[in-house]
Amino acid sequence: MAKEKDQNTKDKNLLICFLWNFSAELKLILMALLVLCTLATLLPFIPSSFSISASELRFCISRIAASDAANSTSSLAVTVVEKPEVDNGVTKHQLTDKAESDRGVIKRPLTEQPVLNNGVIKRSFTGYGWAAYNFVLMNAYRGGANTFAVIGLSSKPLHVYAHPSYRCEWVPANQSDNRIVTDGNKILTDWGYGRVYTTVVVNCTFPSTINTKNSGGTLLLHATTGDTDRNITDSIPVLTETANAVDFDLYDSNRRREKYDYLYCGSSLYGNLSPQRVREWIAYHARFFGERSHFVLHDAGGIQEEVLEVLRPWIELGRVTVHDIRDQERFDGYYHNQFMVVNDCLHRYRFEAKWIFFFDVDEFIYVPPKNTISSVMESLEEYSQFTIEQMPMSSQLCFSGDGPARTYRKWGFEKLAYRDVKKVPRRDRKYAVQPRNVFATGVHMSQNLQGKTYHKAEGKIRYFHYHGSISQRREPCRHLFNGTRIVFDNNPYVLDTTMRDIGLAVKTFEIRTIGDRLLRTRQ
Amino acid sequence: MAKEKDQNTKDKNLLICFLWNFSAELKLILMALLVLCTLATLLPFIPSSFSISASELRFCISRIAASDAANSTSSLAVTVVEKPEVDNGVTKHQLTDKAESDRGVIKRPLTEQPVLNNGVIKRSFTGYGWAAYNFVLMNAYRGGANTFAVIGLSSKPLHVYAHPSYRCEWVPANQSDNRIVTDGNKILTDWGYGRVYTTVVVNCTFPSTINTKNSGGTLLLHATTGDTDRNITDSIPVLTETANAVDFDLYDSNRRREKYDYLYCGSSLYGNLSPQRVREWIAYHARFFGERSHFVLHDAGGIQEEVLEVLRPWIELGRVTVHDIRDQERFDGYYHNQFMVVNDCLHRYRFEAKWIFFFDVDEFIYVPPKNTISSVMESLEEYSQFTIEQMPMSSQLCFSGDGPARTYRKWGFEKLAYRDVKKVPRRDRKYAVQPRNVFATGVHMSQNLQGKTYHKAEGKIRYFHYHGSISQRREPCRHLFNGTRIVFDNNPYVLDTTMRDIGLAVKTFEIRTIGDRLLRTRQ
Repeated sequence: MAKEKDQNTKDKNLLICFLWNFSAELKLILMALLVLCTLATLLPFIPSSFSISASELRFCISRIAASDAANSTSSLAVTVVEKPEVDNGVTKHQLTDKAESDRGVIKRPLTEQPVLNNGVIKRSFTGYGWAAYNFVLMNAYRGGANTFAVIGLSSKPLHVYAHPSYRCEWVPANQSDNRIVTDGNKILTDWGYGRVYTTVVVNCTFPSTINTKNSGGTLLLHATTGDTDRNITDSIPVLTETANAVDFDLYDSNRRREKYDYLYCGSSLYGNLSPQRVREWIAYHARFFGERSHFVLHDAGGIQEEVLEVLRPWIELGRVTVHDIRDQERFDGYYHNQFMVVNDCLHRYRFEAKWIFFFDVDEFIYVPPKNTISSVMESLEEYSQFTIEQMPMSSQLCFSGDGPARTYRKWGFEKLAYRDVKKVPRRDRKYAVQPRNVFATGVHMSQNLQGKTYHKAEGKIRYFHYHGSISQRREPCRHLFNGTRIVFDNNPYVLDTTMRDIGLAVKTFEIRTIGDRLLRTRQ
Repeated sequence: MAKEKDQNTKDKNLLICFLWNFSAELKLILMALLVLCTLATLLPFIPSSFSISASELRFCISRIAASDAANSTSSLAVTVVEKPEVDNGVTKHQLTDKAESDRGVIKRPLTEQPVLNNGVIKRSFTGYGWAAYNFVLMNAYRGGANTFAVIGLSSKPLHVYAHPSYRCEWVPANQSDNRIVTDGNKILTDWGYGRVYTTVVVNCTFPSTINTKNSGGTLLLHATTGDTDRNITDSIPVLTETANAVDFDLYDSNRRREKYDYLYCGSSLYGNLSPQRVREWIAYHARFFGERSHFVLHDAGGIQEEVLEVLRPWIELGRVTVHDIRDQERFDGYYHNQFMVVNDCLHRYRFEAKWIFFFDVDEFIYVPPKNTISSVMESLEEYSQFTIEQMPMSSQLCFSGDGPARTYRKWGFEKLAYRDVKKVPRRDRKYAVQPRNVFATGVHMSQNLQGKTYHKAEGKIRYFHYHGSISQRREPCRHLFNGTRIVFDNNPYVLDTTMRDIGLAVKTFEIRTIGDRLLRTRQ
């Protein structure tokens, strides 16, 4: 028993020793484990392949350091100016960085360096914060078997004064496939306009078909600022194709079969638009372009509730799509970034329509009697683009042929029947394109396309322009006239009842198509 | 003994139990301790008061996420585009973010949102990278008991199209003293010029004396972008005063005692300057302004080795200071950021000189005989600023009164003796200021000052302008003439020997002052 006990005690002694020793090693092992555990706990908060460039890190750190210094007196990591003194060629160190050694705080770049050997004071300059994005992505679209278009904004002065450049990289989903890189062709469409931002369309055309096996992948845009200070490249994933998502038939010109004959791409709509004018515009053009057409409108704040009401019946019929682009207001470009918006529309619907039209919602496309839109477009098929002449109409002078009471009840394009015939060197034009041939577009025409452009279609197709009528929420008739030739404000006008004569047909079409839902629409 | 053993065993049993139990608790305690230790280990790598705003963090993270996605195929955190399809008013989710759930990767902002209830497609816009700094600090200077000036660059379109604003905060070194905040008065001096960057002078004037006890502190500039997208504020420590560093007497106008009567602030020097022309310019003005003057030159690449050689004797005498500002070339502003440079010079030497002169190194200040610079300046003392009329001299037509051989040996301002007398509406002026009265300055005059400006000093002081002569490294005489009135290229000139007559005196002064070190200087 004693022996047993002894044995027992010995065992326990061993156990104690083991545990005792173990408790020392335990600390070590636990410490190692727990450091690992802690890191493991923190890891999910860190992106799985944490890779930022040195410049980015420097930037983040400098911001943190700056904020740090800004927000706490206990650790002001700033350079220290000693008593200023005029430097007589040889100047002592005016700035010393005490923070680092004293307080373990991240060093701030010096604003001034000591005098050099040759008696010259070396000045330095430190940048803080940032004023504009390098690139703002709206979207990217495949434009063919081997080509893509990326649509976005970029800093205007960068494009005017520096040399930003773009490269495109295809990263296959299947990692054993090779990545492919090509130069991006930067297209600036804004005709020199632009404010803080300008519109950029990057055409990424690769030497051969991309995603041949349809196994998916991602398009990266490498956007380089190209300035002398930093020349930073941002790598932006702009488009991912899932497996079997690409329909290559779409890009085969032998098999083309567009969903629509005519697609309307509207510019950014903003301000307080007249619901009645929009109602008239959509009814007119839905009839004019026919069943195989579609209207894409862009709401930059202009499609308010009452305007949406007049569009809703057409949305429900599948004739109209509204894109809410109000978010782009955050980026100060030319007129609600309209150049970006029309390019997005072009590339988004590139394979959906034979022709895309670009004009405004105070403009009405017209073909002369005995023509139809399809006969005209067939005759223009050899052109990639044609421009459309303007018929400038007064937005305030009305023809009161039926007396004032009946005049006010008429639609805008019926009563605003006086055409401005003042001679001017040129008037704005609008245009239509066959989108497969177009790489980027503008507001009055595209200058980046393959194929011919036709500027003499005025005998076949024109547009009536009621300038500004859309953005007034009141009765447009300010003055009533009866004559066929009048002069108002020293400007000659003639009576032009071309549009007026179509009014009844359009109203009938509207009732027949969407019923009487919009009868009580207000100006 | 058995009892003892028993006791011993019991004790050991207790110990074992204790250790056994302890080892369980040990894990817990150690775990807690080690998590703390790990955090403590990591802490030094984190700024001691780690405070970045949500927007900054968002920015850093989005960059990290973007880079992450960009640099690794194994974790492409991108939005996924399903087969594109025209949206007929009602569109299914075209973009789904698979990355987050599948791979634990930080979510990238969606480029497109699902369709909303009302049949409208919500579009979104994602910014990447950055194109220009919010603020580039050159330096900050105390301008009085309660006022400071911060000199730097800022994004030009931000200032044209957005509403950037500045606030100034004094953070006393003694933490028990209160911080003081005031609005910064932003002065834009560039007359509408500027490229990627424009020059900003922020005047920070507090309601009362700052750093009264002379215990030190730091001036923070809070620079807010004021744009609609981010409106981020960068807090920048711009100036630190150490304890007892401020000499308040300097700012007391009753005790003023400037080191210099006249200080020259030069604009940015760039290009390939002629050492001989610089030699002539400095010798002329060192004599003209006298002992109590000083010359500050700014080297934006123009003071190359040979030019520095002709300045060195004057630097050694304490008459000239050269600032190497080549680093500002990284920031694309108007003409080597000259507006920033002259403002830095103004504020840096504000209390060192009674008068500061602003003109170029191809210009020579002159007062008519029987006047001296000091008699003239005394007569102008009531003005804070006066502008100086230009005498435009030809930079290629020489007077060969002494024959060609002797002409070529003469100094530029001796031989370039033909004055352009073509009538023009106005010519550029240069100027001088009493710097204590000036808040910011320009290239041709200051428009931000207190006190009067005088524009009719032409009878007292003028300047001869040899336009472009400084930036040609060759003999300036392209044509020799003898007449007193000539016409060249349809432009009338008259012989003006005013400067020519001073030549000998200047050369003698140079030899007497710095010896013959510069005799072999080349054009």
